[in-house]
Amino acid sequence: MKVIQYPEAPVHVFDSHPAKGVTGRVVIGKDDGAGNFCMRIFELAPGGHTPCHTHAWEHEIFVHAGKGQVLRNGAWEDIEKANVVFIPGNEEHQFRNTGDNTLVFVCLIPAGPPEI
Amino acid sequence: MKVIQYPEAPVHVFDSHPAKGVTGRVVIGKDDGAGNFCMRIFELAPGGHTPCHTHAWEHEIFVHAGKGQVLRNGAWEDIEKANVVFIPGNEEHQFRNTGDNTLVFVCLIPAGPPEI
Repeated sequence: MKVIQYPEAPVHVFDSHPAKGVTGRVVIGKDDGAGNFCMRIFELAPGGHTPCHTHAWEHEIFVHAGKGQVLRNGAWEDIEKANVVFIPGNEEHQFRNTGDNTLVFVCLIPAGPPEI
Repeated sequence: MKVIQYPEAPVHVFDSHPAKGVTGRVVIGKDDGAGNFCMRIFELAPGGHTPCHTHAWEHEIFVHAGKGQVLRNGAWEDIEKANVVFIPGNEEHQFRNTGDNTLVFVCLIPAGPPEI
């Protein structure tokens, strides 16, 4: 069993175009023996955003803290703490922080693609 | 894309031995087209606990709110908001709420076992 506070995991910084103000951590992955799917945690600073992109694999997301928006079929939809977002494979998506505090979400992907 | 607040998902109540004060929701699963892994969210009332059990599949867990403990190698370890817990397959585990507020955690399992 592995028990950590998520900030203990190594941080990856994504702060150049097409991302802004994003950090990500692999908190459960292959190195832990998790062979089926991978848990990452992302933090977006106020004004920050992920890239707008599309890929073959799905995302299963839980919003832990903060307020923001997700791009859904070309329109921005509000999300906040306690929202669940499922993004099927091959669906365009992007996240941005529209609040005054850090937007924190858990984002899981299947095994296979790069873990972060 | 599916965007919900997690309490919108149908609730399952587990409040008889060997569980106490537990509710669970499948928030992303097969019915959503998620074929690789499944997201559930559990709430434990103060004093509540899950069963002590073992099964072949792993858990990837994120603690969203509250305080409690996880049974790890026969000893109780404190967990709280922002903890990540990875439980490999075939490892005994149990959760209990030791705080005054609801303990809320996200718990993912691979496809195959019952979703809840």
